[in-house]
Amino acid sequence: MAQKTGIPKGTRDFGPIEMERRNYIFSTITQVYQRYGFKQIETPAMENLTTLLGKYGEEGDKLLFKILNSGDFLSKIPQPSQDLDSVKMAPFIAEKGLRYDLTVPFARFVVQHQNELNFPFKRFQIQPVWRADRPQKGRYREFYQCDSDIIGSTSLLNEAELVHIIDDVFIALNIPVVIRINNRKILAGIAEKMGASDKLIELTVLLDKIDKIGITKVMEEVEALGLTNESLTLLTEVHKLSGLSIVEKLGSLERLIGTTTEGEKGIAELRELFDYLQEMEIENEIAIDLTLARGLNYYTGAIFEVVSKEVQMGSICGGGRYDDLTGIFGLNNMSGVGISFGADRIYDVLIEMDGFGSTTNQSTKVLLINFGKKESKIALKLAEILRKNGISTEVFPEDAKLKKQMNYADKNNIPYVIMAGADEIAKQVYQLKNMTTGEQFQLNQNDLITTLQ
Amino acid sequence: MAQKTGIPKGTRDFGPIEMERRNYIFSTITQVYQRYGFKQIETPAMENLTTLLGKYGEEGDKLLFKILNSGDFLSKIPQPSQDLDSVKMAPFIAEKGLRYDLTVPFARFVVQHQNELNFPFKRFQIQPVWRADRPQKGRYREFYQCDSDIIGSTSLLNEAELVHIIDDVFIALNIPVVIRINNRKILAGIAEKMGASDKLIELTVLLDKIDKIGITKVMEEVEALGLTNESLTLLTEVHKLSGLSIVEKLGSLERLIGTTTEGEKGIAELRELFDYLQEMEIENEIAIDLTLARGLNYYTGAIFEVVSKEVQMGSICGGGRYDDLTGIFGLNNMSGVGISFGADRIYDVLIEMDGFGSTTNQSTKVLLINFGKKESKIALKLAEILRKNGISTEVFPEDAKLKKQMNYADKNNIPYVIMAGADEIAKQVYQLKNMTTGEQFQLNQNDLITTLQ
Repeated sequence: MAQKTGIPKGTRDFGPIEMERRNYIFSTITQVYQRYGFKQIETPAMENLTTLLGKYGEEGDKLLFKILNSGDFLSKIPQPSQDLDSVKMAPFIAEKGLRYDLTVPFARFVVQHQNELNFPFKRFQIQPVWRADRPQKGRYREFYQCDSDIIGSTSLLNEAELVHIIDDVFIALNIPVVIRINNRKILAGIAEKMGASDKLIELTVLLDKIDKIGITKVMEEVEALGLTNESLTLLTEVHKLSGLSIVEKLGSLERLIGTTTEGEKGIAELRELFDYLQEMEIENEIAIDLTLARGLNYYTGAIFEVVSKEVQMGSICGGGRYDDLTGIFGLNNMSGVGISFGADRIYDVLIEMDGFGSTTNQSTKVLLINFGKKESKIALKLAEILRKNGISTEVFPEDAKLKKQMNYADKNNIPYVIMAGADEIAKQVYQLKNMTTGEQFQLNQNDLITTLQ
Repeated sequence: MAQKTGIPKGTRDFGPIEMERRNYIFSTITQVYQRYGFKQIETPAMENLTTLLGKYGEEGDKLLFKILNSGDFLSKIPQPSQDLDSVKMAPFIAEKGLRYDLTVPFARFVVQHQNELNFPFKRFQIQPVWRADRPQKGRYREFYQCDSDIIGSTSLLNEAELVHIIDDVFIALNIPVVIRINNRKILAGIAEKMGASDKLIELTVLLDKIDKIGITKVMEEVEALGLTNESLTLLTEVHKLSGLSIVEKLGSLERLIGTTTEGEKGIAELRELFDYLQEMEIENEIAIDLTLARGLNYYTGAIFEVVSKEVQMGSICGGGRYDDLTGIFGLNNMSGVGISFGADRIYDVLIEMDGFGSTTNQSTKVLLINFGKKESKIALKLAEILRKNGISTEVFPEDAKLKKQMNYADKNNIPYVIMAGADEIAKQVYQLKNMTTGEQFQLNQNDLITTLQ
């Protein structure tokens, strides 16, 4: 009986056209990264679960795909086992998991290979990650991240260059974007001013939700945290800044939280970053977004997020600075800053914008019609010569009816067809058909090569 | 406490230099595939275990990495569970597995997408696969395969083109190889002549072992299968052909097994294939190897295997024809033929041959020295201009000591360094240092660009 075909939910097959488009995105990002001197690395799909667990919060731990130990995996379960539920049993039967992002494996890589690396180390990495998330539009269980990070330098020049990289990539892809910037220290300054430094994480999560649920709803939740009325006023004032220019925002922040330790640092960092950015030609819109927190607790300085101006798709690139990512693996004082492009969402944005156009065309240039065994040997020979001249060539493998072979060229968007039957071979002149215009030419071998090149 | 860093055994990190070399191998293979009109696809890392199980033999099933079901995986175990050992329990707690090769996922892909594909369909696929094999030299638990297959055509032109692809790839990589060719039908003819058609698989496995354990040992094992003396003589005679030329081999085979149904077909197929190959310019050595079986039961016609002439590494490319690969998924009469390059072993061969040379160099072209905040703004601006002119440029992010910055350029093989201090900026003339020769030049911006391009 035939087996049902199908793939795990949340995963996808990519056919030839999708691959051309995806490769276009990957190579665009790769070229920009290389122009800035970033070097590529790759890490294994599987990491030890000790490396991954506890790095993404409780929710993240649940979303890790775990690999069942090979062989007699039950033998490591302590007896009696009746009291073990799934959560308690998992560590005994699964020691490895699929990577959840590229940042934690990178931190592990840096610590493990610290003696081979020259710091500051600028790496990029383009690989799939896996999350057992509930699949929905634009959210997959297997998707690619395209990360770059500079580790071992606290200079804000790095932040400036990353913003420039973001700008370059989206100019190259022809996607107008807004690059939103914030700084974790500003958020900390606000919390400090509110006398709620211990509630920074909760506040951050709530600020991040303003876009989704509105300021009123957020204020209610903030109130529930038990903050004073004064504190609530500060939050409203911060939110009111959203319409202002960058210079005005920085000025108002100075007034509101400039006296707090963290706030002062955050404002100074933002000022320096914008000072650098002013020297550069950034074409896309840049905005300070004080509600931007990205829910990631490891950011300690700059926070970035990029959205398309034309297509509603959520964040298509994001990142920030983390002062202590490698600390958990025993390497302290390694500040890093990085960004990550979401290739799958960028793909979806380009589809909605009709943005792939004719940019992607790597298909076969010419098909040689097969007229039978004897003629096909000549075709093989001719194909060899064309390929040596850099022309992507196919020989139809069967001497099928001409119509079927023409149909194959048509469906595969092959622009030219060569007919080399007994007559043509005798005369050493080949018939070339332009499949778009229908024109036919009689050409000798050299002219054939010139025309097709 | 700091966590130990490490990765699962049999997996590897790839640093910048390894990545450059690996990308060189992948892009060489990709370019050749595209020149022959193959189209790229990708399939998910995870497949349903129903897709994978039973396709690689009992041993293969054991080597599959299984993914533990998400959530409360214990809830699907039938009660009472005491009688379940690891093998019996696995299906209840793991429904997905990591792909073991690219061939079975491709067969699944073809059946699932048959209505979107134009046959014959020529695809290539370059992705990692995972096997829970015992790691040893040259054998990893995560490694890349680079497959191409033509499906939906029985023409032997396809075999000829695949041999040509193999030749092109190893010429491009500068690795002299022997391309060994056999045909499963010849093996079947031998078994038929021996009156042991029912023992074809055992015979195949034994023939495959001649290289490793020698003909005497193999003959003992064949004898143990309970075959007549006459049969054993045939096997010895087949083995004696190993020194002969292709034409002589085909002649002798005709005499030995030309009267068997399968043998006759196999010889005719080999003759036709060599007929095509003679028309082409194949530079590498081609040999008929009658012991070649590759242990894979799904091959039904041609069998290929490639070994390096200079480095002992085992098979670095292999493949063959399979008449019924998609049958298990419900699509019959889809004959296919394909090859697979083993990128990891090719990497190892190139390392031993010192074959990467200077072919790979994508590193930064020039480093701009950082003399402090004010100067670094000019450096950022200059870097922007250089990058726009296609020059891969870095700005050292910190105003560290000159020696440290020079050291960074040196260790990262950056060939040029630009010094733009207060003096240079005032004069609009920059100092360019060639790191190899030590020469220094005073150049204005335009000359700088021209020199670096």
